[in-house]
Amino acid sequence: MPMVRMVEYDNAGPEVKAVYDDIMATRKSNWVNNFWKTLASHPPTLRRIWAGVKEVMSPGRLDPLTKEMIYVAVSATNNCEYCIHSHIASARAKGMTDEMLGELLAVAGMANQTNRLANGYQVPVDAQFKPPA
Amino acid sequence: MPMVRMVEYDNAGPEVKAVYDDIMATRKSNWVNNFWKTLASHPPTLRRIWAGVKEVMSPGRLDPLTKEMIYVAVSATNNCEYCIHSHIASARAKGMTDEMLGELLAVAGMANQTNRLANGYQVPVDAQFKPPA
Amino acid sequence: MPMVRMVEYDNAGPEVKAVYDDIMATRKSNWVNNFWKTLASHPPTLRRIWAGVKEVMSPGRLDPLTKEMIYVAVSATNNCEYCIHSHIASARAKGMTDEMLGELLAVAGMANQTNRLANGYQVPVDAQFKPPA
Amino acid sequence: MPMVRMVEYDNAGPEVKAVYDDIMATRKSNWVNNFWKTLASHPPTLRRIWAGVKEVMSPGRLDPLTKEMIYVAVSATNNCEYCIHSHIASARAKGMTDEMLGELLAVAGMANQTNRLANGYQVPVDAQFKPPA
Amino acid sequence: MPMVRMVEYDNAGPEVKAVYDDIMATRKSNWVNNFWKTLASHPPTLRRIWAGVKEVMSPGRLDPLTKEMIYVAVSATNNCEYCIHSHIASARAKGMTDEMLGELLAVAGMANQTNRLANGYQVPVDAQFKPPA
Amino acid sequence: MPMVRMVEYDNAGPEVKAVYDDIMATRKSNWVNNFWKTLASHPPTLRRIWAGVKEVMSPGRLDPLTKEMIYVAVSATNNCEYCIHSHIASARAKGMTDEMLGELLAVAGMANQTNRLANGYQVPVDAQFKPPA
Repeated sequence: MPMVRMVEYDNAGPEVKAVYDDIMATRKSNWVNNFWKTLASHPPTLRRIWAGVKEVMSPGRLDPLTKEMIYVAVSATNNCEYCIHSHIASARAKGMTDEMLGELLAVAGMANQTNRLANGYQVPVDAQFKPPA
Repeated sequence: MPMVRMVEYDNAGPEVKAVYDDIMATRKSNWVNNFWKTLASHPPTLRRIWAGVKEVMSPGRLDPLTKEMIYVAVSATNNCEYCIHSHIASARAKGMTDEMLGELLAVAGMANQTNRLANGYQVPVDAQFKPPA
Repeated sequence: MPMVRMVEYDNAGPEVKAVYDDIMATRKSNWVNNFWKTLASHPPTLRRIWAGVKEVMSPGRLDPLTKEMIYVAVSATNNCEYCIHSHIASARAKGMTDEMLGELLAVAGMANQTNRLANGYQVPVDAQFKPPA
Repeated sequence: MPMVRMVEYDNAGPEVKAVYDDIMATRKSNWVNNFWKTLASHPPTLRRIWAGVKEVMSPGRLDPLTKEMIYVAVSATNNCEYCIHSHIASARAKGMTDEMLGELLAVAGMANQTNRLANGYQVPVDAQFKPPA
Repeated sequence: MPMVRMVEYDNAGPEVKAVYDDIMATRKSNWVNNFWKTLASHPPTLRRIWAGVKEVMSPGRLDPLTKEMIYVAVSATNNCEYCIHSHIASARAKGMTDEMLGELLAVAGMANQTNRLANGYQVPVDAQFKPPA
Repeated sequence: MPMVRMVEYDNAGPEVKAVYDDIMATRKSNWVNNFWKTLASHPPTLRRIWAGVKEVMSPGRLDPLTKEMIYVAVSATNNCEYCIHSHIASARAKGMTDEMLGELLAVAGMANQTNRLANGYQVPVDAQFKPPA
């Protein structure tokens, strides 16, 4: 149960409705997921976060599937149950198989492991890895 | 300064030397970075972690650059200075440009933001995102 | 289901009962929430943590509502479901509205985002931000 | 040393210069800090993040100092050295004293502690803390 | 519900069955827990992670109970519900009492608190704590 | 450089001096480390945190070395540079060797890895791991 009342389309004011319409048009879908219905309890956050997600996740130098997989790796690291579900679903819709998910989580898990070994031992950065001034 | 003495090639025992040789052969390079020289203070960890990294980071369903970028996203999330440096360097060597790095960190940053909005509001997972039983 | 048996008032020994009584007196309430009933499985922890929370959350240079909102921001960052619920409830009891919660989570989310951009890019601290020696 | 070349005002293109000008105008200052000069390596991120920070940190139901203190609490939790410095500096400029910083970090530290006790014991959420359906 | 279909013993291929057999033989048990049945959706991960856990958790300079308690402390810090349950169960099977769990979580909680005080205040490392060069 | 001025013994007021004296007496040492000199900028925090650390880290059902190792595992997970240094130094003073540190960080690293695999796959808790009601 969310900490605020979710806003359904039919009860939404015009500012919220406009965002919902843009979400559905952008995604070519006919429903809005709970994340946005919850953010709608604070319309400026709904508008700002949607505009940001729309911009960041659109195709660029990285393709949309790669972006979804990065999103999953971060969400697994932070343990966001909602985000793990929603972004694995999005990645599957874009072609991610069980095997690709396996590799993705294997890399994320390994990074979480070696991050702590590097920190715990306080490994100094090699000169070769430092960017040129 | 690391919390243990790093092991240089010339002072290494045969088990450590064998790992160093495999690292250089696999990477077609002629040096070993500080992470491995630090882990060599505990040879079983050196051997196990290297075998794991070698397996996980080799080409599979995901290409090596995508894997490096996932590694960078997790390392930035966890704030591992060493890993951020070493994996950005590896990703650049595999073709990552400033623009790709910009998109990668934009996605990682956005995920870190929405992870907390989803958690803070305790957004319930949509039935549509649940995997079939 | 908690990992230990919770201690109900009627089954509590005198040390635990004294803490429960102080919790209810301090909060002018007639019940004790599950967090304390769980900590009561280890009485020294119950006593120490309650004394700490009581001291830290009492009015000082920061008012109690500001303190609750800081607690919520940290709990959302760490994804503590229990703490998100209990401290949002406390903040609401002290006057936090949906709009204030929206702003609070917007700031916490933004901080989580820019923390990773600053770390991922390894932005050097400006001399102007360094405290005087 | 940042992972990309920082963009100084005199070398910036018009899109970046416009953001820098808005940062200085908004803050009534005559310099731009390293965070923005680093983000300028990816102009869409510079523009988007600045617009977001400007909106989120402006006065609303929460006053600007409260917002800065929430930012500090999250940054200390995530251990972002840059953000700790920059947001403590901003909070001090808005009136935060050593004593207020002491209370703020005391609350943030306590939340980090009890978050792990609640999680480690898997304390169940009390019915009283659940939001009404 | 896991994000992939779990693999039961009777439906497993020979590579997965061999790992399951080794898990049960090593643990002198007659069942395999859900973690491994989920990893079996990606057999290389199942094999690699099991080999690693088997090696790392076997008796060494640290005894198995100490290792389980370290595992619990990390899992509580990261809020991994599954791992908290499975490693507390393992630690109890090796002799951990409620009182030992209380002390363990008290230390883990305290560390999470002082970590943020040290970071938030940016306390400089004392020369006495630096390892000799 | 810390975010506040550290308080040296000779400049300390009586409340702070009393804590410093107790730290040195308890540890049978003749100096106070920077952590406490920084907390002394907010005397109530100094007093409360020292009392808590003294209680939690004293011998109980767990011996002091085990407690220090748990502290190190959490500090490596959270990447607290100060705490990694100070608690590794304390653990070494209590007998921790390089080999024990190697095992400790191997367990902490593995836990950080499997925490993310369990979360990323959303592995359901086995009935066998659930505590009895």
